[in-house]
Amino acid sequence: MRVSKRGAVDPFLVMDVMERARAREEAGHRVIHMEVGQPGTPAPEGARAALSAAMAAGPLGYTVGLGLPALRQRIARHYGETYDVDLDPGRVVVTAGASGAFILSFTALFEAGDKVALGLPGYPSYRQILRALSLDPLGIETRMEDRFQPVPDQIPAKADGLIVASPGNPTGTMLDRAALAALLDACAARDVAFISDEIYHGIDYDMRPVSALELTNDVHVVNSFSKYFSMTGWRVGWMVVPEEHVRIIERLAQNLFICAPHASQVAALAAFDCRDELDRNLSVYAANRQLMVDGLRAAGFTAFAPPDGAFYIYADVSDLTDDALALSAEILDKAGVSVTPGLDFDPGRGGRMLRFSYAGSTEDITEGLSRLKAWRHNR
Amino acid sequence: MRVSKRGAVDPFLVMDVMERARAREEAGHRVIHMEVGQPGTPAPEGARAALSAAMAAGPLGYTVGLGLPALRQRIARHYGETYDVDLDPGRVVVTAGASGAFILSFTALFEAGDKVALGLPGYPSYRQILRALSLDPLGIETRMEDRFQPVPDQIPAKADGLIVASPGNPTGTMLDRAALAALLDACAARDVAFISDEIYHGIDYDMRPVSALELTNDVHVVNSFSKYFSMTGWRVGWMVVPEEHVRIIERLAQNLFICAPHASQVAALAAFDCRDELDRNLSVYAANRQLMVDGLRAAGFTAFAPPDGAFYIYADVSDLTDDALALSAEILDKAGVSVTPGLDFDPGRGGRMLRFSYAGSTEDITEGLSRLKAWRHNR
Repeated sequence: MRVSKRGAVDPFLVMDVMERARAREEAGHRVIHMEVGQPGTPAPEGARAALSAAMAAGPLGYTVGLGLPALRQRIARHYGETYDVDLDPGRVVVTAGASGAFILSFTALFEAGDKVALGLPGYPSYRQILRALSLDPLGIETRMEDRFQPVPDQIPAKADGLIVASPGNPTGTMLDRAALAALLDACAARDVAFISDEIYHGIDYDMRPVSALELTNDVHVVNSFSKYFSMTGWRVGWMVVPEEHVRIIERLAQNLFICAPHASQVAALAAFDCRDELDRNLSVYAANRQLMVDGLRAAGFTAFAPPDGAFYIYADVSDLTDDALALSAEILDKAGVSVTPGLDFDPGRGGRMLRFSYAGSTEDITEGLSRLKAWRHNR
Repeated sequence: MRVSKRGAVDPFLVMDVMERARAREEAGHRVIHMEVGQPGTPAPEGARAALSAAMAAGPLGYTVGLGLPALRQRIARHYGETYDVDLDPGRVVVTAGASGAFILSFTALFEAGDKVALGLPGYPSYRQILRALSLDPLGIETRMEDRFQPVPDQIPAKADGLIVASPGNPTGTMLDRAALAALLDACAARDVAFISDEIYHGIDYDMRPVSALELTNDVHVVNSFSKYFSMTGWRVGWMVVPEEHVRIIERLAQNLFICAPHASQVAALAAFDCRDELDRNLSVYAANRQLMVDGLRAAGFTAFAPPDGAFYIYADVSDLTDDALALSAEILDKAGVSVTPGLDFDPGRGGRMLRFSYAGSTEDITEGLSRLKAWRHNR
């Protein structure tokens, strides 16, 4: 049967590494997983308890397309509490994860053939989702001196949209208020639609992340319960859109998704009341981060920008290789540590980069760093 | 901020009726809901118990993109048990509901601008999802004498794909084996991709539904846990694709969805062991169906094809009106019964049709039919 060209999206190269790690574990070896992109912690206990209660109370049928009204209200309140932004709950859309939000945002904003700019390195699925929707991703090669974030004069003249992530994946680096404002102004001046991916907000260390909603209403903000709220597999997130886009997004959401998973919406609402548990998770990331910054340097990985948020370090390994895929295989085989080569994040330059995740336990991070140091010493 | 033309999908006209019903209930009146498209029953008890146990056992992080291997295997086994089809679990993809399956299928099969045929009346979201993905829906006006299903000579010459649903929504009518084979043959001969929506399989009465997989492997079959398994809000479904499409769908799924909701996958797997409860639900539908066929006729609604499956009756009300939206408002206001005008299913002819759902309780169906008869008598 026929297949489309737009459906032929790139494979994740990291899958080869993950398969190799799985085989190594099956053979009885212990692998330290520094390739993972998700918390090892479960959804907060209060969130799970709320779902158990809801399951006993009645059917969890379809919700309305925009999501449970109580959840939309709670998310809006979160913007007041966290960013001092007074947000109309009517502008909040509960989505099937950030992934669902991107599908809604891209179809609402762009026609087939439109061009959407994004920073490289960046989350690989931006480019693949865009391609699957017949859109043309325009990669911007960001610089370490710009903390791996795009700057206004890098926005291509033909761009119809710009996706920005702060803190970013794989770098963990943030845009400060001035840098974000400069990008927003440049896009507003040229009618470039602005999509602000704020999925790693809440996982931050020395510097508070700025929401694009602190600066403008003319933006699609995407967020999720996956990272800070530790609910990856639940597939529930949200977006905030301009008031005049709500009806458009609502109709798209009704047709494309019907609704976000009801059970996950119930759990997500309760997760807002689980700050103690979530902040304990956060203190683990903070401890891991310090261990990683020090431990990677001690292991000879010195060329990286210390992360402001998220749970990744993106290190330049050009002193070792220009084939990061082969290097990650070597590190797995020799050190028993699974890391992500940069190619999925940056097809052009990622062959000289590795992403190290510190979302795991502190014990695993300590062991992994010790293994990396020993491997490097004996190499 | 800019918006796209493709994102401007049609509103559901039934939303007006639902809002009117809600207002009527808020004013203290009891409304009988014959407009609902979902079971009133919860996910089976065993499914909920399995999820509670899984939530206690560990994190429900991302699953692999194609879904939990055990669930894919169980779904494949279901084809052996139900259709005598020996299905490779490797061809099963767990999706975020049938909705997620359509997004994967349409992007994998079609380029922007391609034309996809579908029967009218039909599920409204087919057309809207197609439009949002820059595809062009070609409506086929089916005939009551063909049991509201397309026939081969109605497939437009320029079609790149055909979507068929049996049992269909809003009609509940099925294609028999010969009719389905004729459509498959016609599509295969012209390289028209075939998408078989089998979401209402399992909810059938006198006649067993035929899966397209009994006749060919060269098809995308879409199904869901929403209807027979009574898990609408859980957003979990599946598709079966040709072996050579699995890698394409896997990459699309990883990027567009990451995975279907993990909690829902756990519940879905256990739902296969809840046949007793599910078959009790089914016996309620069967009783309701007989009440509806008899009761609607007694209330003067006589022009419909008795449904083979699903939980809808689609009745021609052209003796009463050519404005089904106004008629549904009248029935709500005068009889206190909420029904769906046909316009969402068939923009051309739906103004003379109503859809009556019997997914509710037998008590409600009995009351609703009594109200309809009294209203019609006094009209």
